[in-house]
Amino acid sequence: MNTAYEKLQPYLDKAMAVQTALTLFEWDDATLAPKAAGAKTSRVIEILSGEYFQAVTNGEVKQLVKECREEPLTEVQEAVVRELEDQLDQLDCIPQDEYQAFAKLASESVRVWEKAKEENDFQSFAPVLREVVRYQKKFGDYRAKPGQKRYDALLDAYEKGFSMDQLDQFFGRLKEELVPFLRKVTESRVLIRDDFLTGDFSEDRQERLARFIAEYLGFDFRRGVLAVSAHPFTTNLHNQDVRITTHYTDRVDSSLFSVIHEAGHGIYEMGIRDDLTQTMVGQGASMGMHESQSRFFENIIGRSQAFWEPIYGKFQELFPETFTEIGLDQFVRAVNKVHPDLIRTEADELTYSLHVLIRYEIEKMLIEDDLDVDQLPRIWGDKYEEYLGIRPETDSEGVLQDIHWSQGSFGYFPSYALGSAFGAQIYYHMKKEMDFDGLLREGRLDVIREYLRENIHQYGKLKTSRQIIKDVTGEDFNPDYYIRYLKEKYGKLYEITD
Amino acid sequence: MNTAYEKLQPYLDKAMAVQTALTLFEWDDATLAPKAAGAKTSRVIEILSGEYFQAVTNGEVKQLVKECREEPLTEVQEAVVRELEDQLDQLDCIPQDEYQAFAKLASESVRVWEKAKEENDFQSFAPVLREVVRYQKKFGDYRAKPGQKRYDALLDAYEKGFSMDQLDQFFGRLKEELVPFLRKVTESRVLIRDDFLTGDFSEDRQERLARFIAEYLGFDFRRGVLAVSAHPFTTNLHNQDVRITTHYTDRVDSSLFSVIHEAGHGIYEMGIRDDLTQTMVGQGASMGMHESQSRFFENIIGRSQAFWEPIYGKFQELFPETFTEIGLDQFVRAVNKVHPDLIRTEADELTYSLHVLIRYEIEKMLIEDDLDVDQLPRIWGDKYEEYLGIRPETDSEGVLQDIHWSQGSFGYFPSYALGSAFGAQIYYHMKKEMDFDGLLREGRLDVIREYLRENIHQYGKLKTSRQIIKDVTGEDFNPDYYIRYLKEKYGKLYEITD
Repeated sequence: MNTAYEKLQPYLDKAMAVQTALTLFEWDDATLAPKAAGAKTSRVIEILSGEYFQAVTNGEVKQLVKECREEPLTEVQEAVVRELEDQLDQLDCIPQDEYQAFAKLASESVRVWEKAKEENDFQSFAPVLREVVRYQKKFGDYRAKPGQKRYDALLDAYEKGFSMDQLDQFFGRLKEELVPFLRKVTESRVLIRDDFLTGDFSEDRQERLARFIAEYLGFDFRRGVLAVSAHPFTTNLHNQDVRITTHYTDRVDSSLFSVIHEAGHGIYEMGIRDDLTQTMVGQGASMGMHESQSRFFENIIGRSQAFWEPIYGKFQELFPETFTEIGLDQFVRAVNKVHPDLIRTEADELTYSLHVLIRYEIEKMLIEDDLDVDQLPRIWGDKYEEYLGIRPETDSEGVLQDIHWSQGSFGYFPSYALGSAFGAQIYYHMKKEMDFDGLLREGRLDVIREYLRENIHQYGKLKTSRQIIKDVTGEDFNPDYYIRYLKEKYGKLYEITD
Repeated sequence: MNTAYEKLQPYLDKAMAVQTALTLFEWDDATLAPKAAGAKTSRVIEILSGEYFQAVTNGEVKQLVKECREEPLTEVQEAVVRELEDQLDQLDCIPQDEYQAFAKLASESVRVWEKAKEENDFQSFAPVLREVVRYQKKFGDYRAKPGQKRYDALLDAYEKGFSMDQLDQFFGRLKEELVPFLRKVTESRVLIRDDFLTGDFSEDRQERLARFIAEYLGFDFRRGVLAVSAHPFTTNLHNQDVRITTHYTDRVDSSLFSVIHEAGHGIYEMGIRDDLTQTMVGQGASMGMHESQSRFFENIIGRSQAFWEPIYGKFQELFPETFTEIGLDQFVRAVNKVHPDLIRTEADELTYSLHVLIRYEIEKMLIEDDLDVDQLPRIWGDKYEEYLGIRPETDSEGVLQDIHWSQGSFGYFPSYALGSAFGAQIYYHMKKEMDFDGLLREGRLDVIREYLRENIHQYGKLKTSRQIIKDVTGEDFNPDYYIRYLKEKYGKLYEITD
């Protein structure tokens, strides 16, 4: 009898239930809640955050965790206790009043950021962002183990096993390889037409496309929801309730590929084992592994010719006015067009990781080097000019574009680039195991999805991202695949001969 | 310094936050959650219900409530402590495991009921309903004070100050007066055409009408949401986040009047004082008082000719194909047509309270007289035949039509009829204080709404419904106004001369 673990169960239950409620509030706030609700609902969120904190960090839990270590545990219990210890490490070092105050600040900060972005007014956001950074630095210091840097401590929350040293190397290689390669692409004489992607596409049609494509990929609407929010995202209450959002614009590919991306996240969560969901190890392995799946679906699958072959006719039927004239080949070239641009979430696959690189470099300066937030617009512009050759004219399309910093998610961005690299490495391995393009051409998404579920999704947090990469591909994480993938694909498209 | 009250505050905060979360789950389940989510989300709701129970009934709270009684308290604090004592009385007598088990059962039961209703299969619902009734009887016994009957104990949760004795008198009068009056109406030679209310009205237009009418009444969309659910309802997280739902059918008046009804509930919640919302006395005074407001808006305001005068043109513009030909007078007669029918929520104003009467009589039999649920379809049919002259052919339009019993809400139904009676009494008083119809004709809804806010809404639970009636009208509750209102209005419409 696992007596200590059994005694732990009510605390785990409470943490799960409160966390699920917090997730629902977040979803509701982003998709539906009335504008004026914010201040009073923040109070609710603050109190629930305190309850979560209490459930995880109280003295009895700490004692029980120690006792669990003396008991024989199942694999899942073992993983739950490890995850709980991890959270204890992250939370227990922070005084509860600061933790709750920050939860409240972060929820207010998101609203201030939203307004500032809408009104292109960085100055109105700067004071609250300064507060958020101040908290994150403190939390990093609280969390840092002896000798560890505070940004490394923050990174740990998103991607175990990837420290600043390793990320510096990873991003160093990307910079060294991709910045000059991008120059060749933009100087290439190959011109790709994509004007037809912009137009007056009705929301109703776009929504039908969104539902069709999500379902085609394997997003199960009996267990899933699609809604609209300002910024697309995925969340879930458990593996039977997974929710994705999109937003409709005058670019038909904008919602389309964001739905494919979010469906990738969603399919991951739907694939997590029943005995793991609603436990502390019932989510994706890490942010990076999550992004590897969403970007795998969005780019490696979603932007390939083979994927579109069986369904391009359906797409044309939905928008006959525009696309009857446009062939499959032309469509696929258009959705792969490289266009160095200001907005990360709209970026093409090639420039994407440079957007992330810029954020990584700035985060380090904010957290480690005491850069003041007032300097952000200038530094942001300088880096965009250096790496992408463009400079934002407004802060709304510059430093205000992403939600992450307003939430205090410092250390999150690197996982986007890591995820792309994980995905490429997995892709090269899968191509050895199956006729990848042939399956896509036959519409056998189920085979690909099943492979990912079997090898990645089902495990939840039982394994780290690093372990998964190793178990799937037989080797440690290796960014070369990612660089090779980009150079092969875009070298061919833009007829670049080295 | 209110030390004991201050010590109570964290428990009150937690109860408020958990209650708000439970409200959000309920909303989400009815409007959006995917079908398969139910079982796993029930587990979350069960745990949160347990947390609420704990927050309100733990030993320290009981001690602090006693200590509060020795302290000088403000009016609001006094009311909060009184309400807390009330909840303690209701909850503390129930063993926590039974309370939680029931919360889980109720949430499952709603799903079973939904399916049974859809499939017209009472037998599949009967076993779970039997369980629900068993729990409610037990809870009634636990709660009953010495000598009190268990159904009276249940009634207390919805309408303080109205026991079975008083309700028997109230419903007795309704039965005695309205059953024969209804016979005269159905035998009247006045024929009212309402065929034009049924048709192919697009959801989009119906939604525009719904938003227009809600806003016109004063439902503030900065603080409010309108969504779709199978059964229209109103809920709120606090006075800055009030939510109503509707459903669109081929009868344009169905969604229209249900929106007016729910907007009435919503305006009540929006009018509650800022220092009361998010406390234990921050909701409407009682279920009956709530229904008095929703039915006041729906019937007394919404079905009057004066109300439609300034806006009927707008309505015609939205549905020109059908309503260009139909005059205001004809429209108003149609939406007041009396048609004894099977569905309570679609019932006209005159037959409405007979639907409630039937439920009241059956509830008493279930809770007090050990009627088995297997007998429900038969008894239901008999009573409909006796009071309304019709008999349902299916259980879906019979005993399965309402959600309440599946949730275990026994004692709720009477408040619908009481609310109508409260509203009529308030109406006769308001007519003495203002030119009611004149204001409607001028579109001065704000004056009427402000009167209701000032005299009823703002107080939340600071006063009982009985006290409010007395303070507003200067006399105790008196059902004569309701009977007079119905006889005057429908006597005129159907040209009945006594």
